[in-house]
Amino acid sequence: MVNYVNFDEELRKRRDSVNDIIERYLPKEDAVPGKLAEAMNYSIRIGGKRIRPILMMESYRMFGGHKTVVEPFMAAIEMIHTHSLVHDDLPAIDNDELRRGRRTTHAVFGEAIGILAGDALLNYAYETALQAFRHTEDVQRVAGALQILSSETGLYGMLGGQSVDVQNDKNGVSALSKEELDYIYLHKTGSLLEAPLMIGATLAGAGKGEIGCMKEIGRRIGLAFQIQDDILDVTATTEELGKPVGSDTKNDKTTYVTLMGVDRARETVEEQTAVAVRLLESMPGEKEFLRELLVHMASRSK
Amino acid sequence: MVNYVNFDEELRKRRDSVNDIIERYLPKEDAVPGKLAEAMNYSIRIGGKRIRPILMMESYRMFGGHKTVVEPFMAAIEMIHTHSLVHDDLPAIDNDELRRGRRTTHAVFGEAIGILAGDALLNYAYETALQAFRHTEDVQRVAGALQILSSETGLYGMLGGQSVDVQNDKNGVSALSKEELDYIYLHKTGSLLEAPLMIGATLAGAGKGEIGCMKEIGRRIGLAFQIQDDILDVTATTEELGKPVGSDTKNDKTTYVTLMGVDRARETVEEQTAVAVRLLESMPGEKEFLRELLVHMASRSK
Repeated sequence: MVNYVNFDEELRKRRDSVNDIIERYLPKEDAVPGKLAEAMNYSIRIGGKRIRPILMMESYRMFGGHKTVVEPFMAAIEMIHTHSLVHDDLPAIDNDELRRGRRTTHAVFGEAIGILAGDALLNYAYETALQAFRHTEDVQRVAGALQILSSETGLYGMLGGQSVDVQNDKNGVSALSKEELDYIYLHKTGSLLEAPLMIGATLAGAGKGEIGCMKEIGRRIGLAFQIQDDILDVTATTEELGKPVGSDTKNDKTTYVTLMGVDRARETVEEQTAVAVRLLESMPGEKEFLRELLVHMASRSK
Repeated sequence: MVNYVNFDEELRKRRDSVNDIIERYLPKEDAVPGKLAEAMNYSIRIGGKRIRPILMMESYRMFGGHKTVVEPFMAAIEMIHTHSLVHDDLPAIDNDELRRGRRTTHAVFGEAIGILAGDALLNYAYETALQAFRHTEDVQRVAGALQILSSETGLYGMLGGQSVDVQNDKNGVSALSKEELDYIYLHKTGSLLEAPLMIGATLAGAGKGEIGCMKEIGRRIGLAFQIQDDILDVTATTEELGKPVGSDTKNDKTTYVTLMGVDRARETVEEQTAVAVRLLESMPGEKEFLRELLVHMASRSK
């Protein structure tokens, strides 16, 4: 068993590699008039942890994948994630002017272009993922990966969870049940962590049972990741997070912390992460880095 | 040569048939919590001319297509068209509370759900079109059709044109050149008329030259269609259009009418339509209804 004592260094290397891949798939700004491509690229380049494409690459390699067919999907999942952030930040939703310490897309380009840049990122994700059909020997796997991408992103996935979250905010309902909160977390956050693990496995030719297991890992780690977000909102500093803390309390939002307190919320993060790691251990292939990454996601401090 | 003396009746039949197909692909509202599916379906059911799916079906049949593989794409193109209308109507863009005489999506469900319903319609269009992969014998054609759908919708197509239109509005630039206006019309409107004609041909197995010709027909008819919109804005009544007229003048917008007057604008509609019809005549297959439809689109009074 390899121990990643230098995990941070390994994570940085993978992030650099992912950033190189994403850059190759970004639109060329001088190919079109107007500011739309510039706004799309600005949104993507604000940065971020690139967790989703890294998860996809690790899952792909774990199941023996070694080709470039996964790369357009890695870029696509980050475009979809960015699309959701750009629209979440809009005045009608979270009304955030700062993200990761930088001005949000609509704050820089105006609200109309903010809306259209989010739309264009979502659409460009499909335009990009469809480039994987150039790998003609993998046509059925690519079709399967596209189906996962669309179902985890849409009404039955991320956007469904996001819409329930927004409706609760807007209706001033500040006392969700645990079941309602779980629905939001498992879809708004969990779906877009399930997707990269499932897509990596699918493109590498994993079986149905294995893909189902990767989905369950994504679900557990998504829940842990989002609860950790609740915890950091009350325990971190604005400088650490690159965004205002205490906003959940200020907005009177129901979170795992309000439902069960910080300590029990921390225990839940640990329990969910432990289940995810056990499931991962049941999978074949080299998975040391991926295991460390799952633990890192749950224990992150920003 | 068949003459459709009862063209309106034939158009109505096709619209009914398209509406049946679209209904079959709409999400089930009781399958998910929250209002998102309801808002999506409300937006689609507001109605409309269903021109794009009708164009797709006619193109598909003209090139000999006779299977159901085209149906998910017919539903998908209408979902994408509706997505663009829902977001255009938002306060930050056109700020319209009425469309086709009915309240717009954000006016009914609020701005946040308006944004997310537009997003979810765009994503659901891909989720729906991907169902065409069930026709396993057509995998390469389906992949080609998906590529057309995404490129005509996105940065290099509809959304690109829409973003330039919006930027000009927001910057108070009220004197576009004809070239700039053409860019907007050919992308904002033309791309989503090219797409159904090209996708129908692609799914039916048409050759590259034929698909290119269908694209050119869509381009010409898109320009004619949009110029006709400019003309109706100064000649129709609010009752006829189901939306306020005179809004271009009120907003000091550059249109074909402001650039060249109503008469010359009408001549351009006729010229572009005539080219489209000549191109169509060069194609194989039964095309009487499609020809009438192209002429109808240009001469429509609402």
